[in-house]
Amino acid sequence: MTQEHGRVAAATEMRWNGWGDPARAKDLPLAVRTLLPLLLGRIRRPVDAVGLAAVELPPSALDASDVAAFAAVVGAEHVSTGHDARVRHSGGRSTPDLLRLREVRQAAPDAVVRPRTHDEVAACLRVAVELGVAVIPFGGGTSVVGALDPERGPHRAVVSLDLRRLTGLLRVDEVSGEALIAAGTTGPDAEAQLAAHGYELGHYPQSFRYATIGGFAAARSSGQNSAGNGRFDTMVTGIRVATPTGDIELGRSPGSAAGPDLIRVFLGSEGAFGVITEVRVRVHPIPRDRVFESWTFPDFARGVDALRHVAQGRGGPTVIRLSDEAETAVSLAQVGRIGKALARGASAVTVYEGEGIATRRERTAALLRAAGGVSSGEGAAEEWLAGRFDGPYLRDSLLDAGVFCETLETATTWSNLASLKSAVEGALRDGFAETGARSYIMCHVSHIYPTGASLYFTVLAGIRAEPLATWSGVKARTNDAIIAAGGTISHHHAVGRDHAPWLESEIGITGVRILRAIKRELDPAGILNPGALIPADRTS
Amino acid sequence: MTQEHGRVAAATEMRWNGWGDPARAKDLPLAVRTLLPLLLGRIRRPVDAVGLAAVELPPSALDASDVAAFAAVVGAEHVSTGHDARVRHSGGRSTPDLLRLREVRQAAPDAVVRPRTHDEVAACLRVAVELGVAVIPFGGGTSVVGALDPERGPHRAVVSLDLRRLTGLLRVDEVSGEALIAAGTTGPDAEAQLAAHGYELGHYPQSFRYATIGGFAAARSSGQNSAGNGRFDTMVTGIRVATPTGDIELGRSPGSAAGPDLIRVFLGSEGAFGVITEVRVRVHPIPRDRVFESWTFPDFARGVDALRHVAQGRGGPTVIRLSDEAETAVSLAQVGRIGKALARGASAVTVYEGEGIATRRERTAALLRAAGGVSSGEGAAEEWLAGRFDGPYLRDSLLDAGVFCETLETATTWSNLASLKSAVEGALRDGFAETGARSYIMCHVSHIYPTGASLYFTVLAGIRAEPLATWSGVKARTNDAIIAAGGTISHHHAVGRDHAPWLESEIGITGVRILRAIKRELDPAGILNPGALIPADRTS
Repeated sequence: MTQEHGRVAAATEMRWNGWGDPARAKDLPLAVRTLLPLLLGRIRRPVDAVGLAAVELPPSALDASDVAAFAAVVGAEHVSTGHDARVRHSGGRSTPDLLRLREVRQAAPDAVVRPRTHDEVAACLRVAVELGVAVIPFGGGTSVVGALDPERGPHRAVVSLDLRRLTGLLRVDEVSGEALIAAGTTGPDAEAQLAAHGYELGHYPQSFRYATIGGFAAARSSGQNSAGNGRFDTMVTGIRVATPTGDIELGRSPGSAAGPDLIRVFLGSEGAFGVITEVRVRVHPIPRDRVFESWTFPDFARGVDALRHVAQGRGGPTVIRLSDEAETAVSLAQVGRIGKALARGASAVTVYEGEGIATRRERTAALLRAAGGVSSGEGAAEEWLAGRFDGPYLRDSLLDAGVFCETLETATTWSNLASLKSAVEGALRDGFAETGARSYIMCHVSHIYPTGASLYFTVLAGIRAEPLATWSGVKARTNDAIIAAGGTISHHHAVGRDHAPWLESEIGITGVRILRAIKRELDPAGILNPGALIPADRTS
Repeated sequence: MTQEHGRVAAATEMRWNGWGDPARAKDLPLAVRTLLPLLLGRIRRPVDAVGLAAVELPPSALDASDVAAFAAVVGAEHVSTGHDARVRHSGGRSTPDLLRLREVRQAAPDAVVRPRTHDEVAACLRVAVELGVAVIPFGGGTSVVGALDPERGPHRAVVSLDLRRLTGLLRVDEVSGEALIAAGTTGPDAEAQLAAHGYELGHYPQSFRYATIGGFAAARSSGQNSAGNGRFDTMVTGIRVATPTGDIELGRSPGSAAGPDLIRVFLGSEGAFGVITEVRVRVHPIPRDRVFESWTFPDFARGVDALRHVAQGRGGPTVIRLSDEAETAVSLAQVGRIGKALARGASAVTVYEGEGIATRRERTAALLRAAGGVSSGEGAAEEWLAGRFDGPYLRDSLLDAGVFCETLETATTWSNLASLKSAVEGALRDGFAETGARSYIMCHVSHIYPTGASLYFTVLAGIRAEPLATWSGVKARTNDAIIAAGGTISHHHAVGRDHAPWLESEIGITGVRILRAIKRELDPAGILNPGALIPADRTS
């Protein structure tokens, strides 16, 4: 059983132009094929995707002496300018990324460099500065915000710094419940090594099978168990970072007033300030028990009210998610059930792990019932858990069938949640409609806080014009709507290049100036991930 | 009843050369007077403290046109160069501060300026830049780390920017459980205004009666209810700051991945980057019930073990504190009981508020009993609560009697706690002994985290030489020991000027460079709190 306690087998190499394990890719179920025209009208069959060998890349801008300089640090076998390695490091896994990977002509980094230690990372950064080459730190390759685009900025070339050889559980402190993990360790590898000590990190974003511990930190990941285990932000107790101008190690204490918490400067820094090489995290004993319960609410609003009461008290579930009516109708929350039935109302999933399950479940159930919720047993929640990392496979199949499918997310206070949801839905619907596309928009709440919650949208569209250009316009309009309605530009997908133009609306020009000042100090040559996170300075 | 649910009447103006309300000051109980020579040997009576009118200050370095420039912003009645106002803003309330306040010749800011709004604060900063005058933001005046010293740095004068006219509960969002509070509002005033809505912030540092909401944020305060309500860091959901080069408002969402959390850049910034003018905080309904229970452990080590198990599971108390054998012996944790009995073992206090008290108490009690704890009923815990803001009064009386009394604090992981405690005690004991002083060192744990805990030390000493110089040497030695033993230089007192020389040991030179880069960007003239937080750059 590979999914006991959410742990899964270590990932194979990801499909080069789609999500995940090629062996797990599957065609759309017949029920979905039947449903799609009802939702989206006539679907236009897309042009066939290109094969890996047929992809055309510009020649690498690095010459033999450049390659030798990196090879002197990491060994010649760990520097590659080969075609396949470059394509496989050419971006993340947003829908625009996948659409670009279906084209013949593609952009790619000029080389892939694979250091094995912190010191090798630091040395690679020094070489890059010396050679005038940009560096894109690369973990699991699962970014959906353009954080891995092979952008060279003002530099003459760009290398992908693949961190997946920095791997392993470096230290476990069982008394303190802390583990030091090398940043390139994937989610499943970290959990497998912790499990040998009886411990769990318990951080399960949808990208879990491929993403790395360093990536969780650099992108401020959330994770589906955030109600119980907290955001990744709150799990990190220490961090080690190599920057082009020096190393830094932070986290002397679980609580401190020794100036601002500089760990938080690097959580969410997306490779723009330095390369995270080690992360110290809070871990807990593997929970022995797990209890599932699914719920149905008359409508989304009453479900939100229920989740709010759960979040504002003590002792809630480990996982709690609420789908709106549109998502409930197509059972999208349970990949295995899609299209099986057009359900009514708003469905929710709860999972309990760890101490005091009975008390927590009783308290939560009482709050959900008080808001009009009706328990629907274990089934749907168990199915959600079994399929929770499989959503992205479905997207590949939809793209193959000519259906555009993408996700985006935001968050706000409880009092502003309904109004933000309606603003985002309006922007998506009107944006597609203006290009002649019908869309189907679904939403769920997956992360709750005492003061507010996240909103995660999945949109399907039958795009008639060029999909990349169409989505680019709709996405811009949606980001504007999020900001105007008081939401954050990203709850857990991060900024990358796709959201960078909106960051100033989020944190103000003074906030952007702070980021630029840190960047100038740590990376004066600007080699690190140019164009990601920090919007370009038009005044200089 | 003024202490219902920890709320107390709004503070009167603080005693000019000591702690708190002059009416509450009291002589040392006879039992303490008897005990002291046993602990410390013969006590030398100190010279008498000077009266307020007899304090000699240098003349204000501001001329009439300077004063007029500030008066144009805040009104003439809110700019003072008077003797009393200057003395009352000349520092915080560390023991060295109090010793300096007993001397005839004192340093003081050249004026006190009292803005009423965010815009007035911003305008004051612009005036200060224009005039070349340093600015010390001043809240409750309770710093114990020298953050309020009237240091002018390279500037020709220094003003104290008293923020206590920026007051009031500006907005309550009862659905989201958030309140927007002006930064100069004191703890009791904030709680009184929230109570009118049925809400509580629930943040009770020892400085609660005087300290301000902005001060809690700027200094990364903890608060005695941190086990239940979290550190102040975790309560803040938004912040508004005026800097010399522009304003910033942060906190669009309860969770976000829109780059690094810049709120955390200002939490702990101690007035060096800007002036916090508004703070948005998470609040909760006033708890209806409160349950007390005191405990005794055979020794401190077993008590620590018990607290660790409480912290590493779910559903603990709102307050949990554990005194070591030395503190237990003199009952210092209960100010009202000091010297009444020489108790044995290590005593602990637990307080439960809010939801699920019975379950939480049962679970906690089981863990404490399993570690050898014996319940001693409600009494001692109730007494602790009644006297919990009164500790500093005792210090004044001790100083009057010639006994040196100071506190310091740190934190580390559970696995390193015993070794850090012993290193600090050794440094204090040996440091005093080398100057011929006997000392009595007490310690308690007051803040627990899943991965570690704080250590709070109180030291009494019969100093024979000059107290300020003696303590300065002992304190430096103790800080070195904290760093060498892996602790943080401050768990909740902050950095100020007293800890600044140790900050580089805590966050590394790269960390200090980040702070300097932010400072240069936001405050290029360096007018804000010069010398506080950021150690002087000896290389430039």
